[in-house]
Amino acid sequence: MNVKYYKDVEEEVVTKANSTKTTIRWLITKEDGPMHFATRRFKIKPGGKIGIHNHKEEHHIYVLEGQAEFLDDKGNKHQVRKDNTIFIPPNEKHGINNNQDTNFIFICIIPYLE
Amino acid sequence: MNVKYYKDVEEEVVTKANSTKTTIRWLITKEDGPMHFATRRFKIKPGGKIGIHNHKEEHHIYVLEGQAEFLDDKGNKHQVRKDNTIFIPPNEKHGINNNQDTNFIFICIIPYLE
Repeated sequence: MNVKYYKDVEEEVVTKANSTKTTIRWLITKEDGPMHFATRRFKIKPGGKIGIHNHKEEHHIYVLEGQAEFLDDKGNKHQVRKDNTIFIPPNEKHGINNNQDTNFIFICIIPYLE
Repeated sequence: MNVKYYKDVEEEVVTKANSTKTTIRWLITKEDGPMHFATRRFKIKPGGKIGIHNHKEEHHIYVLEGQAEFLDDKGNKHQVRKDNTIFIPPNEKHGINNNQDTNFIFICIIPYLE
């Protein structure tokens, strides 16, 4: 059993997918032991974004704080908030805009594929 | 992309592992699409518990609200709180006691093993 506090995990700037004002903490990873997926904590500051992108890994997202606009592969927008979950299937395009004046913070789980 | 609010997912009573005063919501599951793991939201009321047990699936846990005591396979106790993560490796014994007077709420991810 390995207990951590999120602030004790390094906060890194996200630059992939044309992201702006976005950071990530890789909370639980393969360095902690045998596992099938990784758990990360993202923060997008007001006005920040993660640009539209896709990949073969699915995402499970749980919103901890704030609100933001999710963009899907059909050009639709979904306004989400604290205690929403978002499932993004493999290969599906997705992006996030923090169009609010507060931080948008979420947990995002991604599989380690073979 | 599939967006849900946690309260729109059925809350079920947990009886496995001699649990008491504990409920689960299976927030994101295989019924939502292709995926390698499931995301669940647990609530343990004051005085409730999940008894010591183990299984071959690992857990990633993120604490949303409250505090509780985690029991590990060596008989040690770990007091955890909001914004702690807990990694429980495959096959390792674990249990949880809510020894506080507020609800203990957490996200728990578990793999779908082949």
